[in-house]
Amino acid sequence: MPDIRITLLPDNVTVDVPRGESLLRAAHAAGVHITSSCGGQGTCGKCRVIVTKGSTTGGKTEKISDEEYAKGYRLACLCRADSPLEMQIPAESRLHRGGLDKPRVDKPTGRLAAPLADQILPAGGQRPVVEKNLIAVDPPTLQDNASDLSRTLRAIKKQHGLDTISVDFQAMAALPGTLREGNWTATATILHDGASRSGGPGEPRLVRIEPGDTAGRHYCVAIDIGTTTVCGEMIDLSRDQVIAEASDYNMQMKHGDDVISRMVFAQKGDGLKILQHAVTETMNGVIGQLLRDASLDRRDISHITVAGNTVMTHLLLGLDTRYVRSAPYTPAVNRVPPVKARSLGLDLDGYVYLYAMPLISSYVGGDIVAGVLASGLYRRDRNTLFIDIGTNGEIVLGNREWLVTASCSAGPAFEGGGIRHGMRAAAGAIEEVRIDPATCEPVVFTIGEEKPRGICGSGIINVVAELLETGILEPNGKFEKNVRVREGSDGMEYVLVPSERSGIDGDIVITEVDIDNFMRAKGAMYAGYQTLLESVGLTYADLDEIIIAGAFGSYIDIEKSITTGLFPDLPVERFSFIGNSSLQGARLATLSRELLADAENIGAKMTNFELADNKSFMDHYMAALFFPHTELRNFPSVMERFKNLGRTCGKKENRSE
Amino acid sequence: MPDIRITLLPDNVTVDVPRGESLLRAAHAAGVHITSSCGGQGTCGKCRVIVTKGSTTGGKTEKISDEEYAKGYRLACLCRADSPLEMQIPAESRLHRGGLDKPRVDKPTGRLAAPLADQILPAGGQRPVVEKNLIAVDPPTLQDNASDLSRTLRAIKKQHGLDTISVDFQAMAALPGTLREGNWTATATILHDGASRSGGPGEPRLVRIEPGDTAGRHYCVAIDIGTTTVCGEMIDLSRDQVIAEASDYNMQMKHGDDVISRMVFAQKGDGLKILQHAVTETMNGVIGQLLRDASLDRRDISHITVAGNTVMTHLLLGLDTRYVRSAPYTPAVNRVPPVKARSLGLDLDGYVYLYAMPLISSYVGGDIVAGVLASGLYRRDRNTLFIDIGTNGEIVLGNREWLVTASCSAGPAFEGGGIRHGMRAAAGAIEEVRIDPATCEPVVFTIGEEKPRGICGSGIINVVAELLETGILEPNGKFEKNVRVREGSDGMEYVLVPSERSGIDGDIVITEVDIDNFMRAKGAMYAGYQTLLESVGLTYADLDEIIIAGAFGSYIDIEKSITTGLFPDLPVERFSFIGNSSLQGARLATLSRELLADAENIGAKMTNFELADNKSFMDHYMAALFFPHTELRNFPSVMERFKNLGRTCGKKENRSE
Repeated sequence: MPDIRITLLPDNVTVDVPRGESLLRAAHAAGVHITSSCGGQGTCGKCRVIVTKGSTTGGKTEKISDEEYAKGYRLACLCRADSPLEMQIPAESRLHRGGLDKPRVDKPTGRLAAPLADQILPAGGQRPVVEKNLIAVDPPTLQDNASDLSRTLRAIKKQHGLDTISVDFQAMAALPGTLREGNWTATATILHDGASRSGGPGEPRLVRIEPGDTAGRHYCVAIDIGTTTVCGEMIDLSRDQVIAEASDYNMQMKHGDDVISRMVFAQKGDGLKILQHAVTETMNGVIGQLLRDASLDRRDISHITVAGNTVMTHLLLGLDTRYVRSAPYTPAVNRVPPVKARSLGLDLDGYVYLYAMPLISSYVGGDIVAGVLASGLYRRDRNTLFIDIGTNGEIVLGNREWLVTASCSAGPAFEGGGIRHGMRAAAGAIEEVRIDPATCEPVVFTIGEEKPRGICGSGIINVVAELLETGILEPNGKFEKNVRVREGSDGMEYVLVPSERSGIDGDIVITEVDIDNFMRAKGAMYAGYQTLLESVGLTYADLDEIIIAGAFGSYIDIEKSITTGLFPDLPVERFSFIGNSSLQGARLATLSRELLADAENIGAKMTNFELADNKSFMDHYMAALFFPHTELRNFPSVMERFKNLGRTCGKKENRSE
Repeated sequence: MPDIRITLLPDNVTVDVPRGESLLRAAHAAGVHITSSCGGQGTCGKCRVIVTKGSTTGGKTEKISDEEYAKGYRLACLCRADSPLEMQIPAESRLHRGGLDKPRVDKPTGRLAAPLADQILPAGGQRPVVEKNLIAVDPPTLQDNASDLSRTLRAIKKQHGLDTISVDFQAMAALPGTLREGNWTATATILHDGASRSGGPGEPRLVRIEPGDTAGRHYCVAIDIGTTTVCGEMIDLSRDQVIAEASDYNMQMKHGDDVISRMVFAQKGDGLKILQHAVTETMNGVIGQLLRDASLDRRDISHITVAGNTVMTHLLLGLDTRYVRSAPYTPAVNRVPPVKARSLGLDLDGYVYLYAMPLISSYVGGDIVAGVLASGLYRRDRNTLFIDIGTNGEIVLGNREWLVTASCSAGPAFEGGGIRHGMRAAAGAIEEVRIDPATCEPVVFTIGEEKPRGICGSGIINVVAELLETGILEPNGKFEKNVRVREGSDGMEYVLVPSERSGIDGDIVITEVDIDNFMRAKGAMYAGYQTLLESVGLTYADLDEIIIAGAFGSYIDIEKSITTGLFPDLPVERFSFIGNSSLQGARLATLSRELLADAENIGAKMTNFELADNKSFMDHYMAALFFPHTELRNFPSVMERFKNLGRTCGKKENRSE
């Protein structure tokens, strides 16, 4: 059966696929990435396309209205091509690189990152995890013709004080030629890995030998492997500087938005291999960009440190996630032995090891260990709450003495999932909303000042808070009757952007279903804080500091978040942002062997609470399904504000009718 | 240009090769192995073939007489095929498997091996280098959902007392499935390698995890990689027994007989890779045979230990031998880190590590370390001389306190090289000769009682001693005038087997050139002993024991060897044979971690003397170029015997003429 040709607009690219292929797979084959939160299960409704020519089968669900279907709208994952056809990818269905190229990804010198790093890193003379040691080897004579390896180890011991050292086969094999090429001067790259064994740090390992003095060319890569975004930086170890940054969407995105859908995909057929390949290809792209930006050669890279959540780390390593996914939620590994980067599919030389930050549990991963490391909270006396908001919101509570953690299954609302016009923080996403308390009219602000295409997480918090403060939304999550509120397909809805001003085909609204999803998400987070606090016998009043982590976190309005009950009602000055602390932690663990050991210790000493089956958590969760909370006395400043604001928008108008 | 067809007789196999291909390469391509001591350089003259049909170019050297050339004799390495042709491979040019299948390869229960092993191995409860540990892992619960790796390490620590352990990635990746498949009972294979680092033993390493209890299936392979022969045995670690033995010619043979020609070959083009492939293919064949004989599956093998000389070890590992070969003779490595067998090209699973016995110097290798280990001499007070006779004769002198070693470049005479009718110890080789002192008539005994095809090393010693004792040969290596002695192309020669009784086309003779080559060989060995003895201030009288190692060694007649001056003139009861001590040592290092550590210590404490540039050695060597030696007072028993025998054979006859 001959292939049929699919034309994709507006890109105007074509691809030949077998008849009956799904439009989603056809688009991926053409290199056009379509949002597909559920990984092609037909449930998220995000992969809408408009078929403009040709015949198809399927692709109609309750996510597509009859009217839309008549216009050619289909869910790409469920729709099969029956003939050559042409399809339009609407802006809202696209995974835009645009958003990433704009500064939604934190600079490594985020607000707190740099000072914290300075604070944590031992003053002067950091000892990086991988060192380049210049050695002068005694040339052999008939009287002293010990092997090249023996004399090299002798030189390393004498000149660098390293007594016990293991030797990689590849480095050993290169010795005879290298030592003579460099006229008995060589540079030995030695990895001080912290995780090769079950107790204590692993022993130093000779991984590479180069002729002459190459110590000045000594670069490492730190990478944060996010479920959505992969961010990397190039570190010049000879100058302790970050010299390039790059990021890209995780190519696993096409197989599902969140870790659950990835794990579902991983269990099917070659799914695990496909996902591993997707993330390594993404990393290869990011590393390639770092090399270009820093004008380096691939061979200049000595080491790579990654931080990712437990699922991302497992998938990168090609480890089975079957038991991560289901109770009792057991990861394959907590401390990962360093592994040759090349063996995973990374386009790096054989001497490059990949170190993955240790994992705490199935839902508290290396990104959180890295974050705790970067925050420095484990070195301070103050009680600190560390919050990383996301589909799985991870929470750490602790200080110098103890650390407890939990992961709350908040759902995808903070990332725009389960929200009718929700979208990721990319160009055209509404990130801020102001509602005129007199007219109930909204003013929206978008990322990149582009025409609004949807609402991102910070925008949702913002609009819910504004709706609450103006009184358009009741604390129970239901809309008051109001001129801007109307009956929609998902119950009542508030129009944020009418179609004539929107960047999509139609109005941008926020519905009661959206608000309900958001309420569950913020409720889960809050219940998480409370459960952890109770576990150590503390209350909110005992919290000295709240650190908000994550690229998303940095764009959150703290006061508005308190208004919705997402954050506890504490003075704003106790809150701080740390940005992409996962990447920062990966960097710190590269720059300093002491901090790498700290990371291992954090991993070992943090106590994990499983909330899935936790009665106390469930009670707290039910109590949090209200704005800001059913226990209003815990939110005095919000109550005060509501009182002052009057919350009369629309009601006044109603009265004036 | 189309290929031309070559037919090889007597096998009657054909092969198509490009016009102009050498007959040697054609024969190899056809799977017919022709002796080629020099590796195809045209110098050894061993690869004689008879072209019976077709036209050729080249292949005539001084090794082929005009008469032979007319009969179709050619040196296969230098002769090129110009047309389709037919060639006969004479028996003497063939590498026969036959010799190997006969018991020329020592049984592991050789004369001394078994008692020595009992003596050395710690009584009861040996701890092998690789262990299979049954573990019961706590199943995870929501209250204890640490990673599969953490709980596995916990079980290993608790149930087997192993605190610090490194983990192979592959074993880690298999954990989730394996633990559940075995219902939380598993078998952990743990390697206790002694050589992963520069000081002290390496740490235990988890290399494999299997579901359930597989501790009863626990097998290791020990292999002696000889320059000529590769011998292996299968060890059942669950019963401490050798259950199968196999051996084969080292496939590197076609690229040269000795280590020098192999190193020359290794430096050309892909030579190193070709040689590595040749030895791993040989090992794969030997392992395959072991598996068949023991009715085991390839996956039952847990570990492999090899002992080989420095060049064999380097070539197996794919290490450059360029600097081994030339002064100051520096090997790449002495202690080899354990390496994954599969990475070398061995057809074994990814969890199988190969441990190579440590090397002392470029010409004293792991076979000697293994031999010293197997002999146990390093554990005794007695002064022991350990001799491994070969092209490079290795000598060790020592006791519990100290060990010195040297390698003598004896030349190939002991292996039949440089001897007109010399051959390896294979079927048809003359291994014993008796000369009737009255008639000067020889009686020859061959291996396998086949028609004589040549003389092997033990036969050469034997015939030289007989010629000396009968007076046919003078102590200066020249023949007396005698009815059995005639003028040949290489000076005078003694006819051992007339053509009508020989298995080859012509008489089998021993020439003055042969005898000169043998004299140099035995002289080098003797000079070696003397140099070592002097280095520690001892004399022959101080020697309590002389151990003769090697498969070849076991077939030597000690008294005859003393007669030629190959061995010192000491009471025969001080001599003992140990057989293939290299293989025995590899076995012991597998069976016992303590003995593996001993091997490492032997490697570290043995002092190597380079004889190449040693003035004292050269003096001793010159003095030894006489039968038995120029200093006759060192050989009192030989003088006595010569006197008693009269040494009048031929002379009487001459007189009677």
